[in-house]
Amino acid sequence: MRYKVIISYDGSSYSGFQVQPNAYTIQSEIEKTLAQVLGVPVTLVASGRTDAGVSAIEQVCHFDVDNPLDTRRAIGYANSLLPRDIRIHQIEEVSSDFHARYSAVAKTYLYYFYCGRAEIPVLDKVAAFEQGSLDIDSMNSACQYFKGEHDFSAFCASGSQVESKVRTIIDIRIDKIDNLFRLEITGNGFLYNMVRIIMGTLFDVGRGKISPDSITDIINSGDRARAGKTASAKGLYLKKVLY
Amino acid sequence: MRYKVIISYDGSSYSGFQVQPNAYTIQSEIEKTLAQVLGVPVTLVASGRTDAGVSAIEQVCHFDVDNPLDTRRAIGYANSLLPRDIRIHQIEEVSSDFHARYSAVAKTYLYYFYCGRAEIPVLDKVAAFEQGSLDIDSMNSACQYFKGEHDFSAFCASGSQVESKVRTIIDIRIDKIDNLFRLEITGNGFLYNMVRIIMGTLFDVGRGKISPDSITDIINSGDRARAGKTASAKGLYLKKVLY
Repeated sequence: MRYKVIISYDGSSYSGFQVQPNAYTIQSEIEKTLAQVLGVPVTLVASGRTDAGVSAIEQVCHFDVDNPLDTRRAIGYANSLLPRDIRIHQIEEVSSDFHARYSAVAKTYLYYFYCGRAEIPVLDKVAAFEQGSLDIDSMNSACQYFKGEHDFSAFCASGSQVESKVRTIIDIRIDKIDNLFRLEITGNGFLYNMVRIIMGTLFDVGRGKISPDSITDIINSGDRARAGKTASAKGLYLKKVLY
Repeated sequence: MRYKVIISYDGSSYSGFQVQPNAYTIQSEIEKTLAQVLGVPVTLVASGRTDAGVSAIEQVCHFDVDNPLDTRRAIGYANSLLPRDIRIHQIEEVSSDFHARYSAVAKTYLYYFYCGRAEIPVLDKVAAFEQGSLDIDSMNSACQYFKGEHDFSAFCASGSQVESKVRTIIDIRIDKIDNLFRLEITGNGFLYNMVRIIMGTLFDVGRGKISPDSITDIINSGDRARAGKTASAKGLYLKKVLY
């Protein structure tokens, strides 16, 4: 039987989500914990990996086991064993055709940032800081050009082995949230570092280095070198996976 | 000549704002740094102290020196010396009748919190967690009873030596901000632990332990024991001082 798991984590101490040799990852912590709780080895399948340092407010995974679980007890026991920067919020039985990765139709990421003369220490815990000022209206204008289906090769870190770099951005906008700005981006899928490269390119727009309407040219070029720098992992959160 | 200073800090590593013997405080760090930058002893007067663990997004202070400063250089030099959890954003000359504490007409505090079955680690860095669920509508109804001028003795930690415990709450409300709730409270002044006791009392309302309209009775009783527990310092931020 298959169980769906909803988790959250602060990724700042981890080498990303996915199990890899000799690295402290979120997946390996959860698999180790669930194996102890359930008494059998567990392989976790996530909606997608998050990079080193990236956090999740709501990440979705699944795993298969032979015997039914007392889910309420499993959650409590697992949370008592897990490091405090990883929490399990829900475990529920799902049909065997649910797949955390392949059934996902969209994901929403948030990127929190702020700007000014100097860091604001309490915001610096959760958001990226850009020294100076940013033209948020221009950045919001630039957002519009990302919407729709495009080949996002220019917004993908080199070394990615995916077959197609065509993705659809369903929604993207920047809002002011108290003393922070928040980029909210929803797409049917994201390439390696894609949200961080979009964010870095939007920072260039905010600084007047590139114009909002040049985004289309950059997308069409397929040239990673024409997009902005990869923004820091701090500030990026997987908000929700939609099924 | 008198200089106004705008600072921000993450209070979580400090024993509060105010200088006290054998304690690591925000005031002592800034005074030590400014003395080094200016070459003369500096006494900082703040709009008010914040308690141990409480942070500030925008705190206002003043200090007096005999000779004019290069404020831009002073900010840069001071920030290079200060611990990273304290930042100076502005230093500007003001008239000698400006007083960081006595000229302040109001202050706004924010209290961020969230609730659920388990903590969300990335929110836990900045907000207080309440296990279970809270009735936010009831809490907002209760907020209305705090508005106006009242004797807030029931919402003041014991040991406070102030002459009058009459304060005016100008505005108070709870909003949803992404995955968090935010209490925003503006008053002409606040007693020792007052915001945290109001928040603790609102948590009791949210859990159905007390009704919103009992707030008036609690205020009128002047009895600290009838109000709720003092909510944790984590989650509380001095947002702005109004002059």
